[in-house]
Amino acid sequence: MTQRIQRHLLRVNLTTGKLDREVIPDEDVQMFIGGRVLGDMLLYNELAAGIDPLSPQNKLIFGTGPLTGTNASGSSRYIVHTRSPLTGLYLNSLAGGYFGPEMKKAGYDVIIIEGKSERPAYLAISDDKVELRDAGTFWGMTTGDAQEFIKDELGDSKVRIACIGPAGENLVLYAAIISERRAAGRGGAGAVMGSKNLKAIAVRGTGEAEVADPEAFRMALRHAMRDIADNPAISKLFPLYGSLLAMPALNEGGIIPWRNWQEAGSPGGVNLFAQTWRKKFVRKDIRCAPPCNIKCTKLSLATEGPHAGVLTEGPDYEAEYSFGTCCDITDQPAIIEADALCDQYGLDTISMGVSLAFAMECYEKGIIDSKDTGGEELRFGQARLLAKSIRDTAYRRGFGELLSQGTKRMAERFGKGSEAFAMHVKGLELGGYDPRGAKSVALVFACGSRGGCHKSGGSANALSLKELPTGEARFSTEGKAALTKASREPRVVADSAILCIFPQAAMSDETIAELLSAATGFNWSAGDLYTIGERGSNIERAFNVREGLRRSWDTLPLRLLTESVRSGPTKSQVVELDILLDDFYGLCGWDIETGIPIPDKLNELGLPEIARDMERYYSITPST
Amino acid sequence: MTQRIQRHLLRVNLTTGKLDREVIPDEDVQMFIGGRVLGDMLLYNELAAGIDPLSPQNKLIFGTGPLTGTNASGSSRYIVHTRSPLTGLYLNSLAGGYFGPEMKKAGYDVIIIEGKSERPAYLAISDDKVELRDAGTFWGMTTGDAQEFIKDELGDSKVRIACIGPAGENLVLYAAIISERRAAGRGGAGAVMGSKNLKAIAVRGTGEAEVADPEAFRMALRHAMRDIADNPAISKLFPLYGSLLAMPALNEGGIIPWRNWQEAGSPGGVNLFAQTWRKKFVRKDIRCAPPCNIKCTKLSLATEGPHAGVLTEGPDYEAEYSFGTCCDITDQPAIIEADALCDQYGLDTISMGVSLAFAMECYEKGIIDSKDTGGEELRFGQARLLAKSIRDTAYRRGFGELLSQGTKRMAERFGKGSEAFAMHVKGLELGGYDPRGAKSVALVFACGSRGGCHKSGGSANALSLKELPTGEARFSTEGKAALTKASREPRVVADSAILCIFPQAAMSDETIAELLSAATGFNWSAGDLYTIGERGSNIERAFNVREGLRRSWDTLPLRLLTESVRSGPTKSQVVELDILLDDFYGLCGWDIETGIPIPDKLNELGLPEIARDMERYYSITPST
Repeated sequence: MTQRIQRHLLRVNLTTGKLDREVIPDEDVQMFIGGRVLGDMLLYNELAAGIDPLSPQNKLIFGTGPLTGTNASGSSRYIVHTRSPLTGLYLNSLAGGYFGPEMKKAGYDVIIIEGKSERPAYLAISDDKVELRDAGTFWGMTTGDAQEFIKDELGDSKVRIACIGPAGENLVLYAAIISERRAAGRGGAGAVMGSKNLKAIAVRGTGEAEVADPEAFRMALRHAMRDIADNPAISKLFPLYGSLLAMPALNEGGIIPWRNWQEAGSPGGVNLFAQTWRKKFVRKDIRCAPPCNIKCTKLSLATEGPHAGVLTEGPDYEAEYSFGTCCDITDQPAIIEADALCDQYGLDTISMGVSLAFAMECYEKGIIDSKDTGGEELRFGQARLLAKSIRDTAYRRGFGELLSQGTKRMAERFGKGSEAFAMHVKGLELGGYDPRGAKSVALVFACGSRGGCHKSGGSANALSLKELPTGEARFSTEGKAALTKASREPRVVADSAILCIFPQAAMSDETIAELLSAATGFNWSAGDLYTIGERGSNIERAFNVREGLRRSWDTLPLRLLTESVRSGPTKSQVVELDILLDDFYGLCGWDIETGIPIPDKLNELGLPEIARDMERYYSITPST
Repeated sequence: MTQRIQRHLLRVNLTTGKLDREVIPDEDVQMFIGGRVLGDMLLYNELAAGIDPLSPQNKLIFGTGPLTGTNASGSSRYIVHTRSPLTGLYLNSLAGGYFGPEMKKAGYDVIIIEGKSERPAYLAISDDKVELRDAGTFWGMTTGDAQEFIKDELGDSKVRIACIGPAGENLVLYAAIISERRAAGRGGAGAVMGSKNLKAIAVRGTGEAEVADPEAFRMALRHAMRDIADNPAISKLFPLYGSLLAMPALNEGGIIPWRNWQEAGSPGGVNLFAQTWRKKFVRKDIRCAPPCNIKCTKLSLATEGPHAGVLTEGPDYEAEYSFGTCCDITDQPAIIEADALCDQYGLDTISMGVSLAFAMECYEKGIIDSKDTGGEELRFGQARLLAKSIRDTAYRRGFGELLSQGTKRMAERFGKGSEAFAMHVKGLELGGYDPRGAKSVALVFACGSRGGCHKSGGSANALSLKELPTGEARFSTEGKAALTKASREPRVVADSAILCIFPQAAMSDETIAELLSAATGFNWSAGDLYTIGERGSNIERAFNVREGLRRSWDTLPLRLLTESVRSGPTKSQVVELDILLDDFYGLCGWDIETGIPIPDKLNELGLPEIARDMERYYSITPST
């Protein structure tokens, strides 16, 4: 039997202190599911174009999906939408853990934060009871301490908290929001939270996440479990090695960037491989929260040497890439410390490591010197630089002030050709997959809604692993746009469910449709959901077009377009981006010349208002 | 109406895995109250003389008192008894927080840990359910991480944990046991726990601490609250400044040791004063646990400079002395970090700081050089040395291996007259009160049961503050033995209740008698309790005599007996120890020549078996 689920939105105005509870119309769920696509729509509608991301005019939208809080494996996630201070564009950022389910159990599918508090504040939610409280006590605290002492102040050890650390308070452009030790990392949502003087959201819910058809949902859960069990990589190997699992293949195939993408595939990478790591450092396999049966997170502890006693939940593949291969650092405990410090100060590990690697290359090339670095010899391979750079970045002191701006702004400042190897797209530092070795990944980065993200425009990991066994075919542009597109829209759907990328990789699209249909009461097919995925992609695109994005922005660092690596299997490869973009735009229904979604396509997706909005942008000369 | 309270002891044998629950006879409570004196008796009876403190033959006795878990202010404490690896003698060590009350609520007044686990283990208690669990996952973790992940493994955020950090695992002789961020710090109980492969005791209790006469207890609580309210230093100033309150007076009076006790009263001390500290660093006033209404702990946070983001619950007066004045360091954030690191690695702050200060003086005097220190310039005033020394000590690496042995062993090794300024008594580093400026304090240190402790032989703080206003009289030996004795026995009683030293300072002895009588059903007068205090002092003394202690051991560092400070109000003062000891032994009923308790005195205290034991020691030549 199917019941109606009423979904709610909490609106918090930090300027006025006004708190409102609103009902989310059922049609919005039908059109946008929840999580990512629902947040896309809200962000598009609620933000005026051109606002300063760090001004009170920006908003933070915390969202859950229909699966959040249920027993679906990998559903313990929340998503934050905002305008990114790092890219100036659309941003969503997700994190696993207990915060999302707790928000749902407190009765809120979405929380919109508006305005700016006059003094440091935090939002305390306990079911229907919502209050803004003074956060003066906690301002300046690291994320671990802040969570501990906020729980203490509220007298409830079961409260769940999403907060910022010093990096967010100090408006570091890639500051993260942290819950437990998990980051909504990319794009600087933590800086937006800091700009609003909001230290934390603490939430406690005593309700349950409801589903529309419990019986059908139980059946769908069984199918989901079967899909996962049938996929040994996800069900057997992933629990052992997490996201480090594919490192050997990606390293051998020349996918892992090395020394700021000067090379691909790292000889030192072998030290970072999953088996070695697990044996020496892993103490425990950790899940986000109980409904996950994969446990991809590895709790790592250094027990010897100068970093003894340092512990982190991770590092994941991206941290291994950004602090490890990208900076040419193989000192594993130093990487554990770097990962832990990013969580404590509230920093995105990818942007942090890639920014440092960029600065290292600039230093080695003589583009900057020790006068710029405050006397520091910024060379590749220096493990001791990790902790120092992270601390200085979080507090924007010394050379950390430059690092805190990210690669794009550093390159603008340094000049001298450094822009060519500033490894970002639209300001967001790239995830660790070299598209010169798997051409479909080029489109993930070039056309991802939030910039050079390895996930928001499809899964760079899954695409790399799909392309690697194809031999020489992986260097061809043929069929790659379709591959990317087929990966992109299901990802948007999963981010709306919300479903983690790893169980999603095991579940069939039909199973996901079954789960979402039972949870919402809408009888979605896999095809219906694909359309909703496209809807989200196009709202995100339209948001960015409104901020100035045109085809010329859908590009990659010059290094990937013109330079090839010196050795290894990807030798002599560059990315033929224009061919790929033509194909991809065609599949997306975007104008080939401008990259703006075509009104027909938007109308077909049920977005007539956005179609009208886009029409007027055809006549505007794109800014750059 | 008075009811019978049945009290229980849990006996855990780590070698065999055997767990036993025993009833504590009512007569034992009548004779020994609980906490300290009850533990004294158990330790005396259960340990054979001469055992190696780090062998399986040693035991750890965790105890609570009749007030633990009740609403009495300052009652949230537990006490650990063991043979100290640092002194080789009697040790008790106390800590506040939630562990003691939780142990009581689980139904255990005492937990005795025996033997040695083959592999790292932890004890998990949930009311009647007791189990030894594998601690392989947590071995190597800092105390904060260990507590977090043990709670996570047990799936209960309300569990309370006493654990060791890397220092305890590595058998650092002054390793602490930590619960929350509070240390049972002195004398190396953490190393004993480490030697047993016991990482932690996790306890959860759903019962309540019972009292024999609830109505009378409520009345006693009212009197206790009145006593505290009537004492503005404790009720008004202490909540603001904690144990730093008396720093200005102690500094001005030449009581605070400076540069390893070469001087007294520190010109830099002004930076460490309470008002300055509170304004710049204190974020919150913290209580051990709800029944305290004083909140002496100051949550301090560094927000600028290289230590930004570092937080500690403290530092208290003793950490200010040991890391601050004693090492001549005035960099406040560095002291905050030192305090935090000691909690995380599980180290006693006093022994750590005083050991470092001793090494600094040895270095400056050329007794050791950079070959001994691994290249480090070990000079006074170098704030950067704090964190490095603490880390190296916790892992016993480099010069930390020497520091980890404490001042006594370092002096034995360094020789060249360094023994004269190794600031310990019986191996335990001194608390921060120079007896050259308050002669009663000399007896606290010289005759304290656990060695150079500022609390176990009476309160050095209270005695200093009592002596300071007496002008020149404070330099006289006259009446000082009586002063110390009058402070010593009530402290033993309070440690048995268990009642924190600060509310105790406000409560009359009659109020404490009223509280304990109502809690136990024994109708004790203040005088009765004083006798029980004496009983405890004498059991402790007898334990030490059995281990070889004689009068010659009741001494002070030569510096205090023969050197005077160069300037300030205590100029030209030394301690005339023999006169003081003669007086004190006389008051205690200890043999003037040997320092052994006289059998008549022991019999009078109801300790005939110990009297018989002591008789045979008169004939044994004391070892040194």
